[in-house]
Amino acid sequence: MITGRLEAEVAQLIRAVTHDGLDRDAIADRFARARWTGLAEPGDGDAGRLIRAVGAPQALELVEAEDDAAIERALATAGEDGAGVRDALARWRPRLREVRTELQLQQAARFGAALLVPGDEHWPLGVDDLGDHAPNALWVRGDAALLGRLDRSIAMVGARAATGYGEHVTIEASSGLVDRGFSIVSGAAYGIDGAAHRAALAGGGSTVAFLAGGADRFYPSGHETLLSRIVDRGAVVSEAPPGTAPTKWRFLQRNRLIAAAAAATVVVEAGWRSGSLNTAGHAAALGRPLGAVPGPVTSSASAGCHRLIREYDAVCVTSAAEMAALVGDPEPETMSGEARDSARIRVLDALSVSSPRPVSRVAALAGLSVDAVRAQLGLLELDEQVRETPGGWRRRASS
Amino acid sequence: MITGRLEAEVAQLIRAVTHDGLDRDAIADRFARARWTGLAEPGDGDAGRLIRAVGAPQALELVEAEDDAAIERALATAGEDGAGVRDALARWRPRLREVRTELQLQQAARFGAALLVPGDEHWPLGVDDLGDHAPNALWVRGDAALLGRLDRSIAMVGARAATGYGEHVTIEASSGLVDRGFSIVSGAAYGIDGAAHRAALAGGGSTVAFLAGGADRFYPSGHETLLSRIVDRGAVVSEAPPGTAPTKWRFLQRNRLIAAAAAATVVVEAGWRSGSLNTAGHAAALGRPLGAVPGPVTSSASAGCHRLIREYDAVCVTSAAEMAALVGDPEPETMSGEARDSARIRVLDALSVSSPRPVSRVAALAGLSVDAVRAQLGLLELDEQVRETPGGWRRRASS
Repeated sequence: MITGRLEAEVAQLIRAVTHDGLDRDAIADRFARARWTGLAEPGDGDAGRLIRAVGAPQALELVEAEDDAAIERALATAGEDGAGVRDALARWRPRLREVRTELQLQQAARFGAALLVPGDEHWPLGVDDLGDHAPNALWVRGDAALLGRLDRSIAMVGARAATGYGEHVTIEASSGLVDRGFSIVSGAAYGIDGAAHRAALAGGGSTVAFLAGGADRFYPSGHETLLSRIVDRGAVVSEAPPGTAPTKWRFLQRNRLIAAAAAATVVVEAGWRSGSLNTAGHAAALGRPLGAVPGPVTSSASAGCHRLIREYDAVCVTSAAEMAALVGDPEPETMSGEARDSARIRVLDALSVSSPRPVSRVAALAGLSVDAVRAQLGLLELDEQVRETPGGWRRRASS
Repeated sequence: MITGRLEAEVAQLIRAVTHDGLDRDAIADRFARARWTGLAEPGDGDAGRLIRAVGAPQALELVEAEDDAAIERALATAGEDGAGVRDALARWRPRLREVRTELQLQQAARFGAALLVPGDEHWPLGVDDLGDHAPNALWVRGDAALLGRLDRSIAMVGARAATGYGEHVTIEASSGLVDRGFSIVSGAAYGIDGAAHRAALAGGGSTVAFLAGGADRFYPSGHETLLSRIVDRGAVVSEAPPGTAPTKWRFLQRNRLIAAAAAATVVVEAGWRSGSLNTAGHAAALGRPLGAVPGPVTSSASAGCHRLIREYDAVCVTSAAEMAALVGDPEPETMSGEARDSARIRVLDALSVSSPRPVSRVAALAGLSVDAVRAQLGLLELDEQVRETPGGWRRRASS
C-alpha cells in the first residue's frame, strides 16, 4: 500500500516540508508519520505503541490492510501487548478514507511549515518523556531550531480571563526570563498566554506557541497578528496536521505537549477549574518542575494557583529569578545567614539613648553576666552602636 | 534562704495569684517559679535544665547561695550536664538583688492576675514542647481556663504595617475560625494581630494575647482598650513578671510561646524580614502546622508569606476552612473526583449544534470507533446534552 503511494509527487512534498536530504526510507517514515498525525487523535497510546513496535510505515500498512489479526501478530512479535488494538483499529478505520495526507502536505509546503519527526536534530527531546503518548511528528512554522533548545525554556500559561495583576506579573516575568536566556513556551490563548508571548517578543527573546488545531489555523482569531509575529521570530507548533480544527480534546492534549516540551511550567493566574490546571497536572505527572504565582486570595483568578501550591506541591514563585530557579538557576536570596545574636540584642535592649547606665546595671537588665556585657559593649562600640559617657554606657540615637 | 522567705505574707500573696488550695510545698514551688520568671530571661535553657533537675525551690536556693560547685554537683546527681552553668550563674547573679518578687506578686494580685505553673489544670501543654526553653510559669489576666483549651486554637500573626487586603483577610479568617470553635492566639500588635483579636471578639469567640512585657504593661499603648477587652473576654498572658518592660529579646521569646501554645500558626501578611517570620520559624522548628496567606507578588507586605511557602514549606492557606484543615479539620473541596472522560469530550467536540451528523461521521471526527460513539451518544442523550434528528445527531445548544 504505502510503497504504492511513494510516487515522485509525495516524495517531493515530503522534501518540501523537511530541511535535510532524505533517502527513500526516511521519506516513507515521514509520510507515514504525517499520516498518523491525522489518523489518530493526539496522545493515542495504541498508535504510539504500534509505531514503536513496527515502525511508522509498517504500522500504517497494517492499519490500511484493516487486518486485526496481522496487527496482533506484529505486536506479539515485537513483544508488545496486543490487547486493545482491535478497539484502536475501530477508532482509526473511520478516518482511513477521511484523512487526505497529500493535501495536508501540500498545505504545509504552501505556508512553509516543516514536518519534524523523532530523531531530527531539532526534535524537542522533552516530549519523548510522554512514552506511548508522545507525538509521532510535529508540524512547525517559523524557526524549528528553537524546539531543539527547549531545555532552557519555561512554559508560562494561565487564565484567558486574566486580570491586570496577572498580565502585569506575566509581562515582568516573561521579560525577566528572556533576559536570562530562557525561551517562553505557551499556548497563544488570550490573557496570560498572549501576554507571555508578547513580552518575550518585546524583550527580543524566543517564544514557541503550541496550537490545538493545525498550525495553519491561527486560533484564537484575535491573535492572528500575534501568531504571525511568532512565526516570524519564534515558532508555532502543532501535533495535528494542517486544516485540523481545534477541539476541546485537542486543547487538553496540546497542554500535555506544552508541559512535556518545556523544562518547567509556571501558572500565573488560573481559576478554580482552569484549563491551565490540566497543563500543570501534566507537568506534575511528568516530574517537571511546576511553579504557581500567588495572588490575592480574594481574586478568583488566583484560586487555581493557590490550589496548585496546596494540592500539587507547586512551588510558589513570585519573580523571574524564582522561576529560573525551578530549573536550577542560582536561588535568589534566602532566609539563611540571618543568625541572631542573642547577647547583642539583649545588651542593646538594656541600654538607653538618654540615660547612661553602668555595666552592672546593663547586666541586670539584660540578664547577662558582667563579662558578657563588657564583651558585647566592646563590639557594639566598634560598630558605633553604643558609646561610653561619664555616667555609663548609652545607646547611640542612630542605632 | 527560700524557707526564710516563706512567711505568711508571701504565702498569702501566692494564694492570691492561684485559684486552687495550696500546701506548703506548692507555695514554695510557685514562689520559686515566680522568682525565676524575673531572674532568668524568657527561654533561658540553663534555668529550665536546673529547675527540671532539682525543682524550682532547690534551684533558686542554689543560685541564691551563689555556689557554682554546689550547682554543678546537683546537676551531676540529676544526670544533667553541668557545662555552662557557671556562665548561667554569672547571668543570673546581677539580678538577685534587682528582682523584687514580692512586689511583683503584690502587683499581680492587685490587677487580678493568676500565676500558672506546669501541672496546673489549665497549663497550656503545647509550651512544654519547648523542653528546657519552656516557660517556668505564666502570668495570666482574664480567663486562665482558655489556656487549657489551646489544642483547638490557631495563632494568627502578621505585619504591623498591614495593608487593607491583609486586614480584610484576617477579619474573614478569624471570624470563620471562631465560628468553627477555634480560639485565636496572637500578640496584640498593630495590624494583623489586632485585627485577628478584634474579629475573634466581634464573633463572640475566645482570644488569647501573649505579651512581651508584663501582663500589667499593655503594649502597644494604642491597644490598651483592645487589651482590656481581651482581659474581660479572653486572656492576656506573659512569661515575664509584672512591671517588666517589653524588649526586642522578649518579643522574640514571646513569639516562641505563641508558636508553641497554639495548635497551628498562620502568617497573614509579613514583610521580607518581618518579626512574624520568627514566630513562623519557631512553629516550624516545633513541628507545628504552619500556614501562610498568599497575596499579590507586587505587595511587599506579602513577601514574607511567599518566602514561608517557598522556604519553610508553609502551607498556602486562603480561607478559614483551609486554616482549620491545618489541624485536621476536614479538607475543603480538592481536585480529586474530576476524572475526565475522553470519549465523552471527543464526541461532544465532534457534534454541531446546527448541522446534524451521522454516527459514522461523528466517529471519524472524534477519532473513535462507531460502537464507542453510539455508546457515548446514548449516555449524552440521557443527560440531555445531544439529540437525534432526521439528518443525524446534534449537540443541544445548552450543553
